[in-house]
Amino acid sequence: MECHDYGLTRSTERKDLNLNPLQRGGILTTEARKALYEFSDGYSVCDYCGGRLDEISKPQIHGFLDDLASFLHTDHARTVHGAREGKFAVMHAICKPGDTIVIDGNAHYTTHVAAERCGLNMVEVPSSGYPEYRIDPEGYKGVLDELADKGEDVSLVLLTHVDGNYGNLTDAQKVARFAHEAGVPLLLNCAYSMGRMPVDANVIGADFVVGSGHKSMAASGPIGVLGVKDEWAEQVLRRSKMHEVKELEMLGCTSRGAPLATLMASFPAVVERTRHWDDEVQKTREFVAEMEKIGGVKQLGVKPKEHDLIRFETPVFDKIAEKHPRRGFFLYEELKKRKIVGIKHGQTKWFKCSVYGFSKEQINYIADSFVDIVEKYKDLV
Amino acid sequence: MECHDYGLTRSTERKDLNLNPLQRGGILTTEARKALYEFSDGYSVCDYCGGRLDEISKPQIHGFLDDLASFLHTDHARTVHGAREGKFAVMHAICKPGDTIVIDGNAHYTTHVAAERCGLNMVEVPSSGYPEYRIDPEGYKGVLDELADKGEDVSLVLLTHVDGNYGNLTDAQKVARFAHEAGVPLLLNCAYSMGRMPVDANVIGADFVVGSGHKSMAASGPIGVLGVKDEWAEQVLRRSKMHEVKELEMLGCTSRGAPLATLMASFPAVVERTRHWDDEVQKTREFVAEMEKIGGVKQLGVKPKEHDLIRFETPVFDKIAEKHPRRGFFLYEELKKRKIVGIKHGQTKWFKCSVYGFSKEQINYIADSFVDIVEKYKDLV
Repeated sequence: MECHDYGLTRSTERKDLNLNPLQRGGILTTEARKALYEFSDGYSVCDYCGGRLDEISKPQIHGFLDDLASFLHTDHARTVHGAREGKFAVMHAICKPGDTIVIDGNAHYTTHVAAERCGLNMVEVPSSGYPEYRIDPEGYKGVLDELADKGEDVSLVLLTHVDGNYGNLTDAQKVARFAHEAGVPLLLNCAYSMGRMPVDANVIGADFVVGSGHKSMAASGPIGVLGVKDEWAEQVLRRSKMHEVKELEMLGCTSRGAPLATLMASFPAVVERTRHWDDEVQKTREFVAEMEKIGGVKQLGVKPKEHDLIRFETPVFDKIAEKHPRRGFFLYEELKKRKIVGIKHGQTKWFKCSVYGFSKEQINYIADSFVDIVEKYKDLV
Repeated sequence: MECHDYGLTRSTERKDLNLNPLQRGGILTTEARKALYEFSDGYSVCDYCGGRLDEISKPQIHGFLDDLASFLHTDHARTVHGAREGKFAVMHAICKPGDTIVIDGNAHYTTHVAAERCGLNMVEVPSSGYPEYRIDPEGYKGVLDELADKGEDVSLVLLTHVDGNYGNLTDAQKVARFAHEAGVPLLLNCAYSMGRMPVDANVIGADFVVGSGHKSMAASGPIGVLGVKDEWAEQVLRRSKMHEVKELEMLGCTSRGAPLATLMASFPAVVERTRHWDDEVQKTREFVAEMEKIGGVKQLGVKPKEHDLIRFETPVFDKIAEKHPRRGFFLYEELKKRKIVGIKHGQTKWFKCSVYGFSKEQINYIADSFVDIVEKYKDLV
């Protein structure tokens, strides 16, 4: 048989300034690049396995999971394949098909598919809509009260700590309180927070937290993190009857290779970077201020920014696209000429971006580039 | 917080001759090492995603999955996180909790945990026991007939194509025939076959095949392969109601980074190497012959070998261990001195090994080393 040419190079995206919020927190540290080299072969972390991934001591997976639990302030920590697989594991362990869960209106699509895969009914706490799309923690109280009035049991409350559309940070502590008042555990989706900003599951009162290594913890995907409070460990980490050391929701072992090694290698740097989260928020706010100097550009979501993921409404680029010979592709192409990538090809009405981890000089260059492009085409506006 | 020292180096295991059957088929090709470098960052394969992993064209994931389906002779192919996750996806999609499935007595533990996680009852077709541990395809007929007589519905038949304990290859075509006569689909676990030897799902009549990238396809884990026959695609690849392009059992996307890039990069070489499977079997048989010249060493499982995974019974090493000052650790340590690894620390009664992919010179060196060690301690025997 003849194979296609798979085009397995990626130099542009590796070398240019990538604004894709999905990718900014997943860029490897030097330590992780070395670990990737060491553990590249299949099943590489299993050299000294005695039967349980989470108990391997060379490399020190066991010690790492202890450190991870300390970092998250949870009783137990496991690696999973990603935040979505962590959410599915929790739902699958503690809910039955037909159960009802309460989620936020800004939930990531993977929350929906994980719940659908489990056959769960979802009741949404809606956002405030345009332009803030704010999730009010009180909304959870309202929805939970309403369901209680109807006599409908709720198995799980899920909150997207920081959502992937607007980068809004919601007060998880309040949501946890309302969930617990209703006797329901809280699963906090920290895919965009864990590894970027401090997350203290204990202070928040989250029963479960999930995070994403490839999204926000400088790891090579797919890898995620699941933190579990002691009182739920028996259910979520329940063992096989046939193979008593194997945890069922983990299918025995989860990440059996390089992604885990990279997560571990980056971890000390990730712990450190969360201590400088305020600087990242400050840089984000300054970038928003620069961008909003361009006529018509407007940051959506809660203001001022409390997270690096930004959604801009950009009618000016849409206007240029109407008359530009390359139509909607012009913005992508103009940015690319300036070594900036990560805005979707063809998108001009609005876009998401992030300057997480960039230096002030790089951020100024990026903002200036957008200004330049508008200036270049001012006759089309 | 203070992090442990994670000990993230692996030079010994990378550079020595590793006999671990779990790892022999997962050693990366040079192309895969390059791809790992290119796609190391988190979410790296998602640069040009339009919403579905399996439709991404840069890198050519879409074309790759087509090639993969051609290679397996299945109608559909997807990447999953590993063979176990593929088995779980099939079971979860087509079985209900409480359903009965029929499996072989040599099934991998992950078959058990996947079925347990789904709440399924397992009925086993036992192996012939010591010393062959053969799975007789007729055994499936017997068990299926018996269940039919009892009026018990069977949702799925699962066969471990080549098992991980004895390396026995079972005639899957016959099992498929018995399964279909009973009106039940067959899931073939090819973790140890796909990528090492030719697997033709169409000729076999398998409705589902799963394989393991890190075990047998020269890929960096965790990554697996799921092949599905058209008539089951609607169930196993069913889409989300809320997000119509997203497949539920895949939770939208599965492998979102480097492991997929390595699987793709190695694929042409993997296709090629399956054409030389007979040479590997021949080398294995010769190695067994050399080892059995050592008094008391005996190959378990079906003879002559039809797969590279070998289980030896080695009473001679156990005898040495009884009197050796390092007890059971001596064998591991003696091998390590000779730059041979992959036999478990402390194991002497029996062990599993594989010489898959080694040159004849390397295999002779390995066999000679075992002979040497026995010779060195002949006074203890």
